[in-house]
Amino acid sequence: MNKYIIKISCSDEKGLVYKISDILFKNALNIEKNNEFVDKENAKFFFRARVYGEFKETTLKQELLSSLPLDTNISIAKSRKKDIIVMATKESHALGDILIKHYSGALNANIKAIIANHEDLKELSQKFDIPFYCISAEGKTRNKHEKEVLELLKNLDIDYIILAKYMRILSSDFVKPYEGKIINIHHSFLPAFIGANPYKQAYNRGVKIIGATAHFVNNNLDEGPIIAQNVKEVNHEYSWKDMQRAGREIEKSVLNEAIDLVFDDRVFVYNNKTIIF
Amino acid sequence: MNKYIIKISCSDEKGLVYKISDILFKNALNIEKNNEFVDKENAKFFFRARVYGEFKETTLKQELLSSLPLDTNISIAKSRKKDIIVMATKESHALGDILIKHYSGALNANIKAIIANHEDLKELSQKFDIPFYCISAEGKTRNKHEKEVLELLKNLDIDYIILAKYMRILSSDFVKPYEGKIINIHHSFLPAFIGANPYKQAYNRGVKIIGATAHFVNNNLDEGPIIAQNVKEVNHEYSWKDMQRAGREIEKSVLNEAIDLVFDDRVFVYNNKTIIF
Amino acid sequence: MNKYIIKISCSDEKGLVYKISDILFKNALNIEKNNEFVDKENAKFFFRARVYGEFKETTLKQELLSSLPLDTNISIAKSRKKDIIVMATKESHALGDILIKHYSGALNANIKAIIANHEDLKELSQKFDIPFYCISAEGKTRNKHEKEVLELLKNLDIDYIILAKYMRILSSDFVKPYEGKIINIHHSFLPAFIGANPYKQAYNRGVKIIGATAHFVNNNLDEGPIIAQNVKEVNHEYSWKDMQRAGREIEKSVLNEAIDLVFDDRVFVYNNKTIIF
Amino acid sequence: MNKYIIKISCSDEKGLVYKISDILFKNALNIEKNNEFVDKENAKFFFRARVYGEFKETTLKQELLSSLPLDTNISIAKSRKKDIIVMATKESHALGDILIKHYSGALNANIKAIIANHEDLKELSQKFDIPFYCISAEGKTRNKHEKEVLELLKNLDIDYIILAKYMRILSSDFVKPYEGKIINIHHSFLPAFIGANPYKQAYNRGVKIIGATAHFVNNNLDEGPIIAQNVKEVNHEYSWKDMQRAGREIEKSVLNEAIDLVFDDRVFVYNNKTIIF
Repeated sequence: MNKYIIKISCSDEKGLVYKISDILFKNALNIEKNNEFVDKENAKFFFRARVYGEFKETTLKQELLSSLPLDTNISIAKSRKKDIIVMATKESHALGDILIKHYSGALNANIKAIIANHEDLKELSQKFDIPFYCISAEGKTRNKHEKEVLELLKNLDIDYIILAKYMRILSSDFVKPYEGKIINIHHSFLPAFIGANPYKQAYNRGVKIIGATAHFVNNNLDEGPIIAQNVKEVNHEYSWKDMQRAGREIEKSVLNEAIDLVFDDRVFVYNNKTIIF
Repeated sequence: MNKYIIKISCSDEKGLVYKISDILFKNALNIEKNNEFVDKENAKFFFRARVYGEFKETTLKQELLSSLPLDTNISIAKSRKKDIIVMATKESHALGDILIKHYSGALNANIKAIIANHEDLKELSQKFDIPFYCISAEGKTRNKHEKEVLELLKNLDIDYIILAKYMRILSSDFVKPYEGKIINIHHSFLPAFIGANPYKQAYNRGVKIIGATAHFVNNNLDEGPIIAQNVKEVNHEYSWKDMQRAGREIEKSVLNEAIDLVFDDRVFVYNNKTIIF
Repeated sequence: MNKYIIKISCSDEKGLVYKISDILFKNALNIEKNNEFVDKENAKFFFRARVYGEFKETTLKQELLSSLPLDTNISIAKSRKKDIIVMATKESHALGDILIKHYSGALNANIKAIIANHEDLKELSQKFDIPFYCISAEGKTRNKHEKEVLELLKNLDIDYIILAKYMRILSSDFVKPYEGKIINIHHSFLPAFIGANPYKQAYNRGVKIIGATAHFVNNNLDEGPIIAQNVKEVNHEYSWKDMQRAGREIEKSVLNEAIDLVFDDRVFVYNNKTIIF
Repeated sequence: MNKYIIKISCSDEKGLVYKISDILFKNALNIEKNNEFVDKENAKFFFRARVYGEFKETTLKQELLSSLPLDTNISIAKSRKKDIIVMATKESHALGDILIKHYSGALNANIKAIIANHEDLKELSQKFDIPFYCISAEGKTRNKHEKEVLELLKNLDIDYIILAKYMRILSSDFVKPYEGKIINIHHSFLPAFIGANPYKQAYNRGVKIIGATAHFVNNNLDEGPIIAQNVKEVNHEYSWKDMQRAGREIEKSVLNEAIDLVFDDRVFVYNNKTIIF
C-alpha cells in the first residue's frame, strides 16, 4: 500500500488536532506516525502525519481545507525518492559522501545530475554514472553564468538542489524560483563566521569548537533557515588547515543529516526557521 | 487557570488520537502542547497533553476510559511542584547542585528532607534549611538500615526519591514500594561499567569518552530505565582521579536534566525504557 | 616538597627545549609534567612544566633568561590556591556553582569576596560565609560605579576576578589594570550573538545548537581570548526561555572548566587567543 | 627536506627530555613538534617528535639507545603514506568513505587491495581501480578461510589492515603476526555492547546516546586498545534500524579519525591503551 506524508500548517485555534484526526479517521487512513507543534509566539500550528490507506487526494484535501482556518496550507505527497541535482565546485568530500550513499541505496533521492563550475569533479561523477555538467563561470558575469545553469535546470524536473560545497554566491534571481528547494552546507557554526573562509576566521578568533551548518538558501548570504548543525572540539594545536580538515567531516555529516530530514518531508519552514518532526 | 498534564498509554489501535482529541475538545479543554508516540514493536500507544480549562477530573477520566482500549492507563495531574527527598552519602556536588537550583526557585520540586548515611552533608543541608537525617549503616544489616530509612519515609508524603550519589545499593524490598519513583545518577555511560568505581574501570579500559547516566532504579543494579545520558571527551593524560573530577560535572548536568523531565511529567516508563516528550 | 609551575614564552628558535631542560636538569628539578607548543605562524614558543625540588627562584630565572631569546617571558609560581573575587548581578546559578565547589574544597581558589550591583545574592553568599558587597549602579555614571568597585578591589590582594553572570559592561579603564585577570562567562557560542540577550538572538535565528563561552575580558565586548566553550542541541520546541534555562547548565559547566584551567596555571594568552596545556 | 617521526618509549627517569633533546640538538635536527607523556602509574615515558634535517638513522638511534634506559624502544620513520589493505564484508559506507578520501588525496595511505568475504563491494572497489579480492568463507572452517587471506597478505607489503565493517571474528592465529597493525571499527560505544548486533542491544537497553569505537584488534573480541570514540544522541523514536542508520555516520567519522591518527604515527600502544599525541 502507498504511504503518504500529509503536512498541514495554519493559524492555531482550538480543536485542530481533533478536526484533522476526525477527517483522517473518517477517510479510513491509517496513521503510522504523527506530530504537531504550536508556535505560540506566532499562534501558528504545524502538523505532519505519515499515513497509508486508499483515499482520493483531492477529496481529502478539500475536506481538510473546508474545516480548517482560511490560511491553511496542505501538502499531501506520496512517499517517494526525491529528484535532485548536486552543485559543487572542486572539493570532493561532500559530493563523494552523497555519491556513496546514493550508490548504496541509502539516499532517499535520485541524483539526476551534477553541475559544477570546474572540471575537477567530472571523473568522480562519471565513476558513478551520474551526468556531469561543467558550466564554467570564467569570464562571465554572475548573471550570465546563472542563466546558463538555470537553462540546464529547466530541462530537469527536480525537487531539490544540493549545494555540496558550491563555492559561489547565488543571486536572488537564481534563488527566487527555487525558494525552499536549495540546501547549502556552510562550513561554520552559523551565525558565526558568515562569508568567506570561515575556518580562517575561526582560527583567528581562537575558538575552541568549530562547526558546520546546513540551511535552506534565501536571498541573504548564509542567513536562510537552519536545518542541522554539528560541532567538534579543537584546540590551539589546530592550524586553520587542520580546522578545515576536521571541519570537512562535520560538513559531510551535517549535510547528510539535513538532506535525510528534507527528503523525508520532515521539515517545515516558517519565519526563517525550521520545524522538524 | 489551572494547568493539567494528561498522560495516556494503551494498546495501539486506529483512531486513538481522534478519540482522545474528540473528548478533550468536547470537554472544552485547551491543549497547550500534545505529543504521541507509537511503539510499533509492541503496538503500544503513548499520549501526553498539557491542557488548561474547567473540567471534572473523574468525568473526563471516565469518558476517556470508556472509549479507549481496555488496558488504558490514564493519569491526570495538576501541574505542580513535586515533593521529593534527596538521599546522599558524602559527596556534595550532586546534592549541592540540586540545593542551589531549589534555592533559586528553578527546581520544579520541594525538597522535604535530605537523608544520608554519613554526617558530612549535614552542614550543607542546614545552610539551606532543609531537614537532614543521618541514618548510619554502620554495624547494621542492609535490611535493618533500609527499614530505618523506610520508617522515616513513611511519614513523608513524597513523589520522588533522588539518589544524588547515594553510594549504597538498595535492596528490592526497599525499591518495590517506590517503583518508578527513585531516580539514580550512575557515574558511567551505562551499560558500560556497571557497579563499583566506574571511573577506575573506564581508566583501565582506556576509553576516550566518559559519561554519566540518570535512570529509574529497579531491582537490578544499574539496569533500570535510562532517563538521560551525557558524555565528555577524555584522553591519555587523564588519571582516573581526573576522570572522576571531570565526571562530576557530567553527573550534575545529567541528574539535573533527568529530574527536570520527570518533575515535569514528561517521562513514560515502558518495557524498562523511557519515552520522553 | 613544594610544587612549582614554570611558564615560558619566547620567540621560537632551534634548541629551546634542550636549553630549558638542560637548566632544569642541572638545577636538580624533577619535572612532573611538561608541555610545549610552537605557534608556527608567529614563530612563538610556549613551554610549561610542573616541577618540584629545592631551588632558588631568582637564580633559576636568571639562568633561563640568560640562555633564552631576548623577548623571553618567564613566570615561576608556587602551586597554590588562587585568591579571587566573584562579581555577579542577580542570577544565582553560576555563583552558586562556584560556591558549592569552593565549599567542597574542589575549587583551586579562595573566594575573598563577592561583589554585586544588586542585593539579591547577599543571602546566598552569607550562607557560605563569604563577604558580600553590594555596590549599586543606580543613578551613577558607569565611571563613578566602577571607581567604587575599584576602590574596594584595591584593598583585596587578588589573582583573578570571575564574572559569574555580571550583567554590566566593564569599561576599558576598569579592565586595563586587570588585563588577563578577568574571566567572563558569555551566554552564547561566541562569536555568534555578541551583546545583549543572546538566547533571544539564538531563538530568533533558529539555531539547532546553543552554547556558552568563557573568555578573558579585554577592551572589546565579548572579544577577549576564549578559554572554553561548550554546546547543547536544541530544537524548534525550545522557546527562548527554554534555551535560557538549558543554557544555564552550559554556562555553569563552561565557567567551571575555564576557571579550573586558569587557576591551575595551564593557560597562556597570546595574540588574543589561548594556548592551554 | 625529509621529515621523520621519532617515537621513544622507556622507563621514566629524571632528565629524559634533556638527554633526548640534547642528542637531537647535537645532530642538528630541527624539531617541528614534540610531545611527551609520563604514565605515572607505570613509570613509563613516551616521547614523539616530528623532525627534519640531515642525519644518519642508525647513528642517531645508537646515540639515543646508549644514553636512555635499557628498556628503551625507538622508532625513527620517514614521514610517508602508509601501505594498507581494507577488509570488508557487504556494507559500503565505511569502505566508501575511505575510498573517497583516498581518491581526493586526503588519506595518508595507499590502498593496495580490498579483501572481502562477499562479492558485493567488488563493483565499488573497481570504480576506484583498487584490486578487489573476494575470499569467500562459505563452507570453510575459520582456520582454512583465514589461511587463504593470510596467503594473499603475504604477497602484499603492508603497514596496516583496516577492518571497515568486516563482519567476521579474527582468530588469534590471524591477529598475532599483525599485532598493533589491525584497526577495527566497532559499532558501539565500547565496552558497552560487545559482540553481535550492538544497535539491537542498545535499542533494547533504551540508551539515549549511541556510539562507535575504533580500536586495535587483539586476541579478545572488541577488547583491544581504543583509538577513537564518538557518540550521537538518540531518543525513543529511534527503532534499532534508525539507530543503525544514524550509527553508520558515527562509524565513518570515528574510523576516519582513528586511521588519520595512526597513519600519522601519532599513536602509542601501552598496557592495552593508547597514548595519542
